[in-house]
Amino acid sequence: MPSIAYLGPEGTFTEAALRKMSAAGMMPGGSGETGVEALPFDSTVAAIAAVRTGAADYACVPIENSIEGSVLPTLDSLASGSPLQIFAELTLDVSFTIVVRDGLRAADVTTVAAFPVAAAQVRNWLGVHLPTARVVPANSNAAAADDVAEGRADAGVSTALAAQRHGLATLAADIVDEPNARTRFVLVGPPAPPPQRTGADRTSVVLRLANVPGALVSAMTEFSIRDIDLTRIESRPTRTELGTYMFFLDCVGHIDDDAVAEALKALHRRCSDVRFLGSWPTGAAAGAVPPALDEASGWLARLREGKP
Amino acid sequence: MPSIAYLGPEGTFTEAALRKMSAAGMMPGGSGETGVEALPFDSTVAAIAAVRTGAADYACVPIENSIEGSVLPTLDSLASGSPLQIFAELTLDVSFTIVVRDGLRAADVTTVAAFPVAAAQVRNWLGVHLPTARVVPANSNAAAADDVAEGRADAGVSTALAAQRHGLATLAADIVDEPNARTRFVLVGPPAPPPQRTGADRTSVVLRLANVPGALVSAMTEFSIRDIDLTRIESRPTRTELGTYMFFLDCVGHIDDDAVAEALKALHRRCSDVRFLGSWPTGAAAGAVPPALDEASGWLARLREGKP
Amino acid sequence: MPSIAYLGPEGTFTEAALRKMSAAGMMPGGSGETGVEALPFDSTVAAIAAVRTGAADYACVPIENSIEGSVLPTLDSLASGSPLQIFAELTLDVSFTIVVRDGLRAADVTTVAAFPVAAAQVRNWLGVHLPTARVVPANSNAAAADDVAEGRADAGVSTALAAQRHGLATLAADIVDEPNARTRFVLVGPPAPPPQRTGADRTSVVLRLANVPGALVSAMTEFSIRDIDLTRIESRPTRTELGTYMFFLDCVGHIDDDAVAEALKALHRRCSDVRFLGSWPTGAAAGAVPPALDEASGWLARLREGKP
Amino acid sequence: MPSIAYLGPEGTFTEAALRKMSAAGMMPGGSGETGVEALPFDSTVAAIAAVRTGAADYACVPIENSIEGSVLPTLDSLASGSPLQIFAELTLDVSFTIVVRDGLRAADVTTVAAFPVAAAQVRNWLGVHLPTARVVPANSNAAAADDVAEGRADAGVSTALAAQRHGLATLAADIVDEPNARTRFVLVGPPAPPPQRTGADRTSVVLRLANVPGALVSAMTEFSIRDIDLTRIESRPTRTELGTYMFFLDCVGHIDDDAVAEALKALHRRCSDVRFLGSWPTGAAAGAVPPALDEASGWLARLREGKP
Repeated sequence: MPSIAYLGPEGTFTEAALRKMSAAGMMPGGSGETGVEALPFDSTVAAIAAVRTGAADYACVPIENSIEGSVLPTLDSLASGSPLQIFAELTLDVSFTIVVRDGLRAADVTTVAAFPVAAAQVRNWLGVHLPTARVVPANSNAAAADDVAEGRADAGVSTALAAQRHGLATLAADIVDEPNARTRFVLVGPPAPPPQRTGADRTSVVLRLANVPGALVSAMTEFSIRDIDLTRIESRPTRTELGTYMFFLDCVGHIDDDAVAEALKALHRRCSDVRFLGSWPTGAAAGAVPPALDEASGWLARLREGKP
Repeated sequence: MPSIAYLGPEGTFTEAALRKMSAAGMMPGGSGETGVEALPFDSTVAAIAAVRTGAADYACVPIENSIEGSVLPTLDSLASGSPLQIFAELTLDVSFTIVVRDGLRAADVTTVAAFPVAAAQVRNWLGVHLPTARVVPANSNAAAADDVAEGRADAGVSTALAAQRHGLATLAADIVDEPNARTRFVLVGPPAPPPQRTGADRTSVVLRLANVPGALVSAMTEFSIRDIDLTRIESRPTRTELGTYMFFLDCVGHIDDDAVAEALKALHRRCSDVRFLGSWPTGAAAGAVPPALDEASGWLARLREGKP
Repeated sequence: MPSIAYLGPEGTFTEAALRKMSAAGMMPGGSGETGVEALPFDSTVAAIAAVRTGAADYACVPIENSIEGSVLPTLDSLASGSPLQIFAELTLDVSFTIVVRDGLRAADVTTVAAFPVAAAQVRNWLGVHLPTARVVPANSNAAAADDVAEGRADAGVSTALAAQRHGLATLAADIVDEPNARTRFVLVGPPAPPPQRTGADRTSVVLRLANVPGALVSAMTEFSIRDIDLTRIESRPTRTELGTYMFFLDCVGHIDDDAVAEALKALHRRCSDVRFLGSWPTGAAAGAVPPALDEASGWLARLREGKP
Repeated sequence: MPSIAYLGPEGTFTEAALRKMSAAGMMPGGSGETGVEALPFDSTVAAIAAVRTGAADYACVPIENSIEGSVLPTLDSLASGSPLQIFAELTLDVSFTIVVRDGLRAADVTTVAAFPVAAAQVRNWLGVHLPTARVVPANSNAAAADDVAEGRADAGVSTALAAQRHGLATLAADIVDEPNARTRFVLVGPPAPPPQRTGADRTSVVLRLANVPGALVSAMTEFSIRDIDLTRIESRPTRTELGTYMFFLDCVGHIDDDAVAEALKALHRRCSDVRFLGSWPTGAAAGAVPPALDEASGWLARLREGKP
């Protein structure tokens, strides 16, 4: 039974994601029936560190949110330190449950505990329904429920799972300011052979580029020239000098797709450093599948034999 | 005397930046002697909103930090809503002052108030010098000093300016985990003719791209083909669907540089939307100045007259 | 009445082309009624040289044939020496008239005079209809008729115009091995303001490129990035060293199209040498008209005024 | 002993080239000692056709001249009909021997037989030394000597080899208007495994491109993105419609170079048709050797095994 580190305490969206991954049989080498040992950590950074120290086999962490964008501590943890790899992903609709102490009415709520990311996503709702309440920062969505349960706040912006675990009253459910709010979670582990190519896969790399104009364009062209869809590009500072960056690129396809393999080799040759973050199934295709090169490879083989 | 909204309360790095901008005569249309009316706001988002409502003439806001990367609320505020423009920038070395209540010794500190961004930048220092203290979130670096002054925390990760204003004792000064920690601040105002070209300028745009593979490469190629240095690229979610982005691009040069003007026109033609965030002086060149096209324009004019 | 040098003697396709250009009012500054003074020369090279010496106002010369490709002496004459410019073009269907002496029957023909280019284009026909006749080189299609008229050959591969002028019998008319055989002729003169933009124009340049890999790709990209159709690319040796070339590029559009003007300026900046061969009307568009940049220019002007 | 078709009669530059190739052991599968059976043909087209019919094992033909450019009949013969392949190349300095009948003096020469290509290359010399002589077309450089030997011309622009075979007097030797006049000859045969990679190789293809703007730029980018030097690009009409072309591209490298193999596969996928004209040694490198991908391939293999 693999152990999975996650942003705790119990009841976070991350725990919900990892339970769902496990139930869907998305854990490497394991079936849904085996189950997993879920290990709560204080932060995504700590959860990822637990994989590096061996305290956990994998970590389940959020990587991107449709409203807030990339989850930067996750990106930064993946980019530095010993190599890690992504093996699975799961996207959850995000909506919040507003929990209250002792069944308090909205009018009686003076403080609302909220993880800052969550506070940002229900700001409008709070403005309308709890206009006078003061927002108190919580360490996670589940911790907001703890804060309510332990009397540190009247209400909390939390999750259905946490509400249920604490047996807290629910002031409102399925709350989110913007429709389409979704978070993508990934399962991170030590380097290993990537999951098998499924035809609906994602590959991710981190590039450190020589600081020459056009280096990023050239790197991206290695994908576009091969008709590989880039689905994400994110820059992060190198933490050395203002104005120097590393780049996270996601593309459609698998390291076992010939076109993706060619592009990776080209990047390896061209970039100061390429960190491979894995190839893994996405369930549904995020874009056009990279072109198969089998026919072209056969043609080439025939040329080499003098039999065009 | 122009009014400048900023992330308050008094004593933040942002206030320090705006005082320095004013002293250096970087305010549009104003000399250093005139001075400015500094208006503190609760957040950078609120400071920028004040420009849109007319409550302030300009806002001074952080846009990028060498350790944390882009200041996302600033980017998101600039990208949506009525058009705004950047008129000046200033980069500050960032280092923190650790303030304490009543001259407490390190061994007696049990709680440390810290703006989360700041907490991340002194994490190592805290681990070594205040290993048992619990970090309590503050709303800004200056607010951390407020928290100490008002007894809500034993110590605070704050600024020299705030320590001085509150008359707080200093446990340690010039603290930062990583050397080269710097923050870039910009002055934002309503659209107006950009400051004059100085030869060391920056131009910034936000692109919304048709969701076709290669659209970003094409857009970036509009710069590279014209030998214009891109100094920054940042993606942000469009907030509509996971996997759709807008892009912030900074380049060296001014809208009055012929090459930059050509590139902007090409982007306008090619992109779903281009939001111009301004051309402004950077003091020192951030890269190679865009090539002058005067000679080529003269050559073209002679061809048109039949006098090659 | 302008004087026009052409590949003579009377009766060549070139003469037919220039008569048709004149009748169609395509002569610069002149109407079809004025007429032209047609001056026959021994070769296209000599006809072009006559413009440079002032012996003729213009030269009408073939530049491209759908079967044989570019007319290399024309290209080489345009690329070197004092600058010349193209002002008009006309495309003719090419088909040959087989003339015979004294009404000879096919069976009696032992020698056939033919300009080598023409011989190549009726090779199949000769193989079938005059299988035993020996081909004797002639200096032009019209000269082949001279050879027949003066008894130097039994038959000749010539033109309808030449047959008529010499009063020679016709063995066969409208002969050509391949359908769609067409020749494009151009009118060449000293540099002058190009004819007005019509919306269906062609622009032509000769590039000498620094001998770096990728220089040609870069030059061509200056067109493609601006959505300008390249309609022809032809390489010619520089005549200095084996493996060094100059390049003839034709594109759709006029030097007064903003996009074409931008591309020309970029080439001027990038290439060792750019020789402008003119912008002139083609009658029908050879490809997509270059994009108009008026709207983008207006947008840019508004940005510069601070009125987005 | 392989049979080699060539442009005859005996004494042409082509024969000299093939003798030299044979002596240098450049014949596929044969040593220099074996010798070859040289079969003269009337034209390069006929020599190439002899390979297709099986009348000869190989053909030795000129493909490019530093003054005249590509030898178009050679290109057109390679591009159409059953596939052929190039196995070797040799470059000769070109200079002409002026032969005369009966030791005639220059002043007595009224006719000069010359292959048109040769006439073009000694035009200046003829203008100075035989200003009044009329040029009579010959079928080859060797045939010009025949014409003199058989009394059809007073003088001939021919080769040293032909002068010697006919025992003709030499009016002048080593004549050529332009220094650096060189011709490159290739050995053409039916498809077979290419000669082994030597590290100084050339690869040649003919592309038929979908008639979309930018298709040629895209095709060329497949080479440039992989740091493969293109050494030649030549366009030829498709012979169907004016303005449609096929393209001959030569690059540095061998089909067994990983980078070249990748580029060929990409072209095969992208183009309407790619005809491989072979990979063969050039003796000296014509440009930078394509980058080796061994290191990158090893890196990729390790990623696939989960051992970065």
